[in-house]
Amino acid sequence: MPTIQPRVLKGFRDFLPDIEMARSSLIKKLEQVFVLFGFVPIDTPVLEYADILLGKGGGETDKQVYRFRDHGDRDVAMRFDLTVPFARFMAEHVEELYLPFRRYHIAKVWRGENTQRGRYREFMQCDFDIVGTDAASADADILLTAAKAMTALKVGDFSLRINHRALFNRFLARIDALDKSVEILRTVDKLEKTGVQATAETLSTLVAPALANDILSFIQKEEGFEKTLNKMFSFCNPSDVQAQAAQRRLLDIMECVAAAGDEHRVVLDPSITRGLDYYTGMVVETSLAALPEIGSVCSGGRYDELTSLYTDRKLPGVGASIGLDRLMAALDVLGISAGSDMSAQILIINQGETPIAELHALAASLRNAGFACEVFPEPKKTITQYTYAERKHIPLAVFANSSSGPFTIRILSHRENIEIADFARLCETARKELHASA
Amino acid sequence: MPTIQPRVLKGFRDFLPDIEMARSSLIKKLEQVFVLFGFVPIDTPVLEYADILLGKGGGETDKQVYRFRDHGDRDVAMRFDLTVPFARFMAEHVEELYLPFRRYHIAKVWRGENTQRGRYREFMQCDFDIVGTDAASADADILLTAAKAMTALKVGDFSLRINHRALFNRFLARIDALDKSVEILRTVDKLEKTGVQATAETLSTLVAPALANDILSFIQKEEGFEKTLNKMFSFCNPSDVQAQAAQRRLLDIMECVAAAGDEHRVVLDPSITRGLDYYTGMVVETSLAALPEIGSVCSGGRYDELTSLYTDRKLPGVGASIGLDRLMAALDVLGISAGSDMSAQILIINQGETPIAELHALAASLRNAGFACEVFPEPKKTITQYTYAERKHIPLAVFANSSSGPFTIRILSHRENIEIADFARLCETARKELHASA
Repeated sequence: MPTIQPRVLKGFRDFLPDIEMARSSLIKKLEQVFVLFGFVPIDTPVLEYADILLGKGGGETDKQVYRFRDHGDRDVAMRFDLTVPFARFMAEHVEELYLPFRRYHIAKVWRGENTQRGRYREFMQCDFDIVGTDAASADADILLTAAKAMTALKVGDFSLRINHRALFNRFLARIDALDKSVEILRTVDKLEKTGVQATAETLSTLVAPALANDILSFIQKEEGFEKTLNKMFSFCNPSDVQAQAAQRRLLDIMECVAAAGDEHRVVLDPSITRGLDYYTGMVVETSLAALPEIGSVCSGGRYDELTSLYTDRKLPGVGASIGLDRLMAALDVLGISAGSDMSAQILIINQGETPIAELHALAASLRNAGFACEVFPEPKKTITQYTYAERKHIPLAVFANSSSGPFTIRILSHRENIEIADFARLCETARKELHASA
Repeated sequence: MPTIQPRVLKGFRDFLPDIEMARSSLIKKLEQVFVLFGFVPIDTPVLEYADILLGKGGGETDKQVYRFRDHGDRDVAMRFDLTVPFARFMAEHVEELYLPFRRYHIAKVWRGENTQRGRYREFMQCDFDIVGTDAASADADILLTAAKAMTALKVGDFSLRINHRALFNRFLARIDALDKSVEILRTVDKLEKTGVQATAETLSTLVAPALANDILSFIQKEEGFEKTLNKMFSFCNPSDVQAQAAQRRLLDIMECVAAAGDEHRVVLDPSITRGLDYYTGMVVETSLAALPEIGSVCSGGRYDELTSLYTDRKLPGVGASIGLDRLMAALDVLGISAGSDMSAQILIINQGETPIAELHALAASLRNAGFACEVFPEPKKTITQYTYAERKHIPLAVFANSSSGPFTIRILSHRENIEIADFARLCETARKELHASA
């Protein structure tokens, strides 16, 4: 029978065990951090009504969305992010929930993007948000959670670069450039990529050259949090209550962060603006000291109206999104391996001499003692079984004459064999060797 | 601005925190069992080429599949199970992997089914398979893994009901009814639902009445494994080598299962056939003693040609699928709660008197001591904060005058307050109370 060529769609990929274990291990570590900060998990459907996901407008996103008619001729689409479904979720369930609602959601999203830039059309997002409160305490919690997550992942030194949208906007208001804030924000957002010279030139097409210089001066970081904050505030009208509130908010956030011992992780960086109109207060990006070039691995901010598309009720919130693919790539570059806790620890070699049932009895005893292990199901050449163990990252192999011993344990990385008399010593030696190889 | 009514598609649902925590906790327990038996995780894309998922034929499944044209006019579909993508995966990657390949895959699938039967159009599957070996040891491992999974989930007493396809088929061959095996298997498969009388009648339309009685006698369970096996074999031609091999295989599997201490979990049940043509050897279904009516919660069997649609290479395998939704429903009926390990343990009450930064300092210390906790971000009424804690299943609330104490700890379930002098005693008391409430 002629066969069908096995292949995946362009922009999609399989996850083989090594990379899937790394992803799974990364997600578990993040989940532990979220739980530590009181976040709870939710899930939403992959498919939703297209008008729910896309609103009424068209736009750049729309073109990338996988959208089709289902069997009931409904206009449906696959989710392209986790924010829009979360907004719909909150509008629909707010009465069944409690506020403030701290949720995390780690799930796949789909975008039919141009794959030439090395992007995938199926990827995972990891969002965490606190909705239903406008308190500085919640802003601080997002920063503290992000910091704890980065620490848990052992990515080395990192910094959370924060800013407040209102300070920038009130400065623009003072120089009568608020109507151009979107273009100016977009220009400033690209500063690191395009450089000061190009940024100055673009700004000069938007405002008078002297004001372009003021903008560049405004977004310049100073030595230390307070100095930077004071400089930024000095560009605003000192009696502007919105600017005052933003200044106060940044101080309050920083006080909580400092009390929790993470002051050294947070930098006030006036050049961080986050492109999206969406944000209304604090914004944050996270860069790794060892890999600044990969960009922000955790970004977010405060927003006023999460659910305005679906309900008249106002739900302010603050949240951030961790770039899992970017982080996986970073961990790979940094040589940080993950996921070894998901491989079996012991392979029970099958030489065909000891009855297979005896090997299963031994496996059951080892599992009861807490070891992840497997019996090689057929009597193949020992070297074949060793190779199998190495490919699976199984560190130990055991030869058994019966389920109660005697045994030979082989440390595969050293090609060293140890003779062992009984089961208790087998466990003891295995534990010691696994500890040494970890 | 008029808003869009927030709603999900028919047959789809949101997972609110309580149920998502239960699902997550269930999955974690299953993953631990899979790892204990040497299974490794993989993942495949949700979208695939339609011809990959559907093969060349049409059929009942096809009508239920979400299928559409993507932006590149490709004929694509969302996966409707995890078996077909796994077959494609093995055909594509077998050279990069190692055999036998033990994988598990827990992921969502989509079917546009009739929702009137209480079915969802988006649901999760949990498959585990051992591919690339025809050994009895692998058959046994699937049973042992299923038994360990049920034990880990604490579902009470359960039994794995196994059978071997070839014994039934060789019996049918002896009575010259092999050409009707599909119809006979299908009829027998419904025995529990339709009853003996109706089954006998249907069988009589397929074979002579005397043979219908033989079939009913064949599928009758006897007392004990060997007696049942001998009865089944007695219906076959004793010199039939295929029947002999099947008998031998069931004995070999049972020997391994018994050696691992799970003999009492496995029952030879000649009425189990599994509807699918797909299976060629052992088949298995799992029923819960407390809830036989919900049907099998873990089903599977041995197959010869996983990848025949995509490659000429033969890859025999054995595997099973755990019905997560069914298990979740069962745990719910049995009153087994899951997921409480994912709620915060301590709520730090915010009365507006102690500076918020002090509360964050306390939270950081508690997290460093291993407690999952959160600061209520705003100074609301104490009763509001208690209610919030109860809704989130947070067992303890803490009032603090400063991050170093003194503290009041409230056990919310008892409405009991305990005065505590310092941080060390706070940790000690919290640990004791959490242990008592677990």
